[in-house]
Order: sequence, then C-alpha cells, then structure tokens
Amino acid sequence: MSKVFNLDESKVLNEIMRYRRDVRGNRFINKAVPDNLIDKILDAALLAPSVGYSQPWQFVLIDDIAVKNKVLNSFNDKNKQAQARFSSEKQKAYQALKLEGIIEAPLNIGVFYTPSQEPVLGQTSMTEMGKYSVVCAIQNMWLMARSLNIGIGWVSILEPEKVKEAVNAPKDSELIAYLCVGYVDKFLDEPELKTKHWQQEKNKEELIVKNSFK
Amino acid sequence: MSKVFNLDESKVLNEIMRYRRDVRGNRFINKAVPDNLIDKILDAALLAPSVGYSQPWQFVLIDDIAVKNKVLNSFNDKNKQAQARFSSEKQKAYQALKLEGIIEAPLNIGVFYTPSQEPVLGQTSMTEMGKYSVVCAIQNMWLMARSLNIGIGWVSILEPEKVKEAVNAPKDSELIAYLCVGYVDKFLDEPELKTKHWQQEKNKEELIVKNSFK
Repeated sequence: MSKVFNLDESKVLNEIMRYRRDVRGNRFINKAVPDNLIDKILDAALLAPSVGYSQPWQFVLIDDIAVKNKVLNSFNDKNKQAQARFSSEKQKAYQALKLEGIIEAPLNIGVFYTPSQEPVLGQTSMTEMGKYSVVCAIQNMWLMARSLNIGIGWVSILEPEKVKEAVNAPKDSELIAYLCVGYVDKFLDEPELKTKHWQQEKNKEELIVKNSFK
Repeated sequence: MSKVFNLDESKVLNEIMRYRRDVRGNRFINKAVPDNLIDKILDAALLAPSVGYSQPWQFVLIDDIAVKNKVLNSFNDKNKQAQARFSSEKQKAYQALKLEGIIEAPLNIGVFYTPSQEPVLGQTSMTEMGKYSVVCAIQNMWLMARSLNIGIGWVSILEPEKVKEAVNAPKDSELIAYLCVGYVDKFLDEPELKTKHWQQEKNKEELIVKNSFK
C-alpha cells in the first residue's frame, strides 16, 4: 500500500509554505547551523523530481570568507547597476532594502546545474528541464530549512560567471542559485516587498484561467 | 514571535517529499478531484517565493477534451522524435515507458510565466529568475497534491508553442510546465526510471563540494 497522508499532515505542509520567507542579512544571527541539519536540507534537495531522473545538481557549501567576499563584490557591482533601472521614486525605496546576507549568514550554498553528456529523457523538447529540476531541489531545501527553523535567502543580483570563478566551477556548470543559510532573529509574517508596498499581492482569480485565455 | 516548527513536523515534510512521485497515465484512476482540493493545490502555488514579489505565474485548468487532444498530438509528435535520440538498446526501454497521462488524468494544468512590463527587483542580472519562481510554485503544487494523496505528472515532451495555441495564451506568456493531476491506484515506492535501471541514483558525496571544485 502507498503511504496515505491525513489532513493534519497536509496542514503542516501548508504552514511550512506559509511561514517560509526570503531572508536577508538583517535577520541572520551569528549561530552555526549544525552539520546534521545541513545534511537534512541537502537530503531534501535530493528528493526533488528531476527530468529523466538525471539528478543534474551539485551543491557547493561555502564558509570561506575569501569566496564570500568575491561573491559580495559581484553583488555590489550588479546592485549598483540594478538601482539605475528603476524609476527615481523607486530608487530610494530600492536603496533602503537589504538584498543579501552573504557575510552575515554562516553558510552560503551555490547550487549548480551540470548538463548530462548523454541525451536526457524528457529534456529533448524542452531543454530548460534540467535547470527546472535544480529549481525544484532548491524549493525543497527552502521548505526543509524552514521546518527546521532555519532561514534561506536567494541572492540573484550577481554575475553567475563571477561565482563560478570564485568556486572554480567546471566550464559547463551553470549557477542556478546562490543561497544564504542560517538561523534568524525572526521570520517576518509576510514578504517584506508586500508590507513595504514595493509590489501588491495579485488577485488569485486573475491568475487562474479555465481551458482557454479567451 | 515567529512560528516555530518541531521535529515531528519536519519529519512530515520529509515524508511528503520522499513519497512524491511523477505520475503517468498508467496510474491515474477515473475519479474527479474535488474543487476544494484543486484550490488547496493552487493556494500552495501562490505561497511560493517569487523574485521581487513579482508573482509572474498563471494557471490554466484544463478538462476540455479538445484542448487535451491537441496537447496529446504534440506529445506524440515530439515523443517519436525523442526516441530516435537514444542508443538502439535504450530505444526499446524508451518505447516501453508510459510518459504522459494527458487523457487519463481528469485535470491538466498548464503553468505559464508572464513577464512583467516593468523591471523586476532581483531579475536585473539573472533574467531567468522569473521562470525559476514559477518552478518553485510548481514544486509547491506537487508536494501539496501528494499530501492530499493526489498525483501529479509533469509532461515535458511537447512543443510549448502548440500548448500555447491550444489554450489561446498571450504571445508573451511562456509555458513552464504541463501537469497531469488526479487520484492514482498507487504511488510507486521509488522513481520508475531508477527501479527500471534507466538511470542510477547518484552518489551523494559526489554532489557536494566544499568551498571550491578544486
């Protein structure tokens, strides 16, 4: 018989999803994450679906300050460029936001996609499927961390090639995510970009379509 | 105070991840999924992280057989082409696999990425971040469905443009996933591609790197 879950268990999952947050450097505290919990987070990644069971992922655990500083430099470069993209009224709000926790988080994890040398079942038409598998693994890590009361923040304002250089990644690997991982003083109740009115919550009805857009 | 989860709750999450499977047409049974459970699956999607809180997702609920048949035609075309990509010994194994459940599943869900007209915070350097947000939502749906004892299968052997045509999707939308959703006769204990020796499980140690690849 297959495992049958009950409604209480489904409710636990809903709560873990509901209370998961993207965590930045103003929330991380200076407390090491025990190895056995890092292991649970990595195990969650390995339970993710992958196209053709290709498991096209690699995880670089980073606590070396020299590596972190190289990544932070890339963030600083790219963040300066990014600000200029927004309207002048939004630029002030942008500058006030803390958008990474590279140094503050005791652990960073670079998550890489490594393409297969052979054709992959399910990836022959949609070649992005391998990268999407890695993202499924990242979401599993994020949820597992939250269930262990550990925060994760995804830093995407950086140059992937600079991160690859910093960790000597193979040429054909691709950085999918750079994660900051650690204990927090608290998890915010809601996404900060919502409470600070950077972006409104979308109306659920407008996101759901029945059979055809028109 | 932030919500604190206990180890039993973390264990529930691990089990939902462990018993989640990719479900194909040979497992779906002819039993409608109640609307309130479809709603729980969609709510899980909306709890996913999204870059810059952009929520760049749309969900097309498909039960119209005319739409399903168009998608199945695209699968059949692409699957024929895909087989030829594999070595002759693998082609036999490939042909024996059931790789979709478009007709068998009572509900299909097309998950689309809709780019923002404005710059998106966090997406200025890594432009794929919007699509990756949609994949996080898909993984949330997959886990929530499993916790409700409902199966999901991700069909990626198809031409995204044909699916867009079938549901009259806007030009700038992009199909990220085509999901088949329904109750199942059973969930397999392990990924079918593992038990059928299509692909081996990778060694965990080889997937984890400390600070630098060399």
